[in-house]
Amino acid sequence: MERSITIRVPGTSANCGPGFDTLGVACTIYNDITLSLLHEPDLSIELEGEGAENIPCDSRNMVWRSIQTLLTRAHKDKEYQGARIHMVNRVPLSRGLGSSASAIVSGIKAANVLIDNYFSRAELLQIATDIEGHPDNVAPAIYGGFTVSIVENHKAESFSFVPRIPLQMVVAVPDFFLSTKAARKVLPEKVPMQDAIFNIGRSSMLVAALIKGNIRFLRHAFEDALHQPYRESLIPGMADVIKAAKREGALGACISGAGPCIIAYTVEHPHEVASAMEQAFAKNSVKAKALILDVDRRGAHILKQDEI
Amino acid sequence: MERSITIRVPGTSANCGPGFDTLGVACTIYNDITLSLLHEPDLSIELEGEGAENIPCDSRNMVWRSIQTLLTRAHKDKEYQGARIHMVNRVPLSRGLGSSASAIVSGIKAANVLIDNYFSRAELLQIATDIEGHPDNVAPAIYGGFTVSIVENHKAESFSFVPRIPLQMVVAVPDFFLSTKAARKVLPEKVPMQDAIFNIGRSSMLVAALIKGNIRFLRHAFEDALHQPYRESLIPGMADVIKAAKREGALGACISGAGPCIIAYTVEHPHEVASAMEQAFAKNSVKAKALILDVDRRGAHILKQDEI
Repeated sequence: MERSITIRVPGTSANCGPGFDTLGVACTIYNDITLSLLHEPDLSIELEGEGAENIPCDSRNMVWRSIQTLLTRAHKDKEYQGARIHMVNRVPLSRGLGSSASAIVSGIKAANVLIDNYFSRAELLQIATDIEGHPDNVAPAIYGGFTVSIVENHKAESFSFVPRIPLQMVVAVPDFFLSTKAARKVLPEKVPMQDAIFNIGRSSMLVAALIKGNIRFLRHAFEDALHQPYRESLIPGMADVIKAAKREGALGACISGAGPCIIAYTVEHPHEVASAMEQAFAKNSVKAKALILDVDRRGAHILKQDEI
Repeated sequence: MERSITIRVPGTSANCGPGFDTLGVACTIYNDITLSLLHEPDLSIELEGEGAENIPCDSRNMVWRSIQTLLTRAHKDKEYQGARIHMVNRVPLSRGLGSSASAIVSGIKAANVLIDNYFSRAELLQIATDIEGHPDNVAPAIYGGFTVSIVENHKAESFSFVPRIPLQMVVAVPDFFLSTKAARKVLPEKVPMQDAIFNIGRSSMLVAALIKGNIRFLRHAFEDALHQPYRESLIPGMADVIKAAKREGALGACISGAGPCIIAYTVEHPHEVASAMEQAFAKNSVKAKALILDVDRRGAHILKQDEI
């Protein structure tokens, strides 16, 4: 008897402007994974959709490596030495929509269900954070909603909430990659105290206004002074795209994660915001396609469970 | 006929640990002011309680100067050129409990009522911020509760909320003054990016957990990396007092405003926390008295209104 499980995991957008390395939000764009664990050391990985040409389908595969990490921590890596994995990817790769967090979370969530929920959700957060290096994308991928994450002595803590306003997200996806590593390299080690205060205020305001559902206080709450100014050179048209989104009524817009996607937050006119962002990118000679997404409220969850 | 008004204004604690120059909380310790506006340029100021020896009772008085600012902005400084002011002060002076914000807010709030609420509460916030230089104390003094404040192009915005947990505050008040100016001078102009991220995460977590009423996530939420490490040298025993409060069950403790008060946040054992903090200060040769306070939910409000 071989058990198989299908898990759905949302794409995520980290930082949300001022919440650098802290805030994240799960979006209604999903990667699905179907997993069977095998006793024998056989590995078969099939992949459809985004990244089909770029993602290795062998032992280097990140989903499989995440599954191995989970099995090792559960002392079941001797029991299960192989897997059959089928992925349907919709989250664009290396664009700042949490595709790697998605891969990690889908693997460990699926494997965890197959070993009878050996780990709690908080433990999955920790395992995923250890693999990814930081919790800001894996937390919303696991919990859904917006998440506030901190790390204390390598231990991740994430608080998840669903905003009390009908917030939509318009994500302009440019047709080029930007590695998180490259986007990290342009950041300074020290920053002006005033810029730190700028972000503390806006990140706190963002969280308060989203939880309480007060749109009026979101006008400046997506602004950032700590990372975007340094990353502007890596994303041609960044400032124009953000301006265009706000001109069409978006509450604010910012780099999604480490970019190059630009994400706008809006309660009205998402289609107008989407075309304005595409056009602003086009004026800067960047081809981009805008997605209109909602906040995912569930996080990683089971789509289908079979016993064959 | 002379109208007289009595206004009650709470003391406040700014920063709340990670929310440097952003967060503030109103406490159940109050300054009362009774004001009559006079057409003739007579000024009489009486003062009872805290600061009776230090506060000037002439035209340099901050309450009076704040009243004058408000009257000028309302174009009523010709109509009212004098005042009769009686103050009962309970907020300790220059200790980090917002005594100056209290003075400013009491003056402008009282005068504003006497000129028939010429200004809205949001306008009072702006006037008080202009006088004080920053909104973090005046905002909770006006609105009550916890406040998240940002400043955008010199325009203050403050969001106020009451925490959904039975939070008490234990404030250890040392018997020495510390000027905000001196406490500002020890801060660097640039700070490590990692410290900025530390505070962004904790301040956002603090706001989320207080609004949602989730005590579990408050364990690390009062920690700071941006200002307290630099101010430790100005407050003998700071680290010991914070440790002592947490040992007795406080969720966290931090410098109140620019100090030298240390404020602990707790949902249990306030009396034990209070003695532990006093003792920890004593071990460092600092005489201190601890106050046990609740969160004020009303902000500045009318106590009594008379027509004589």
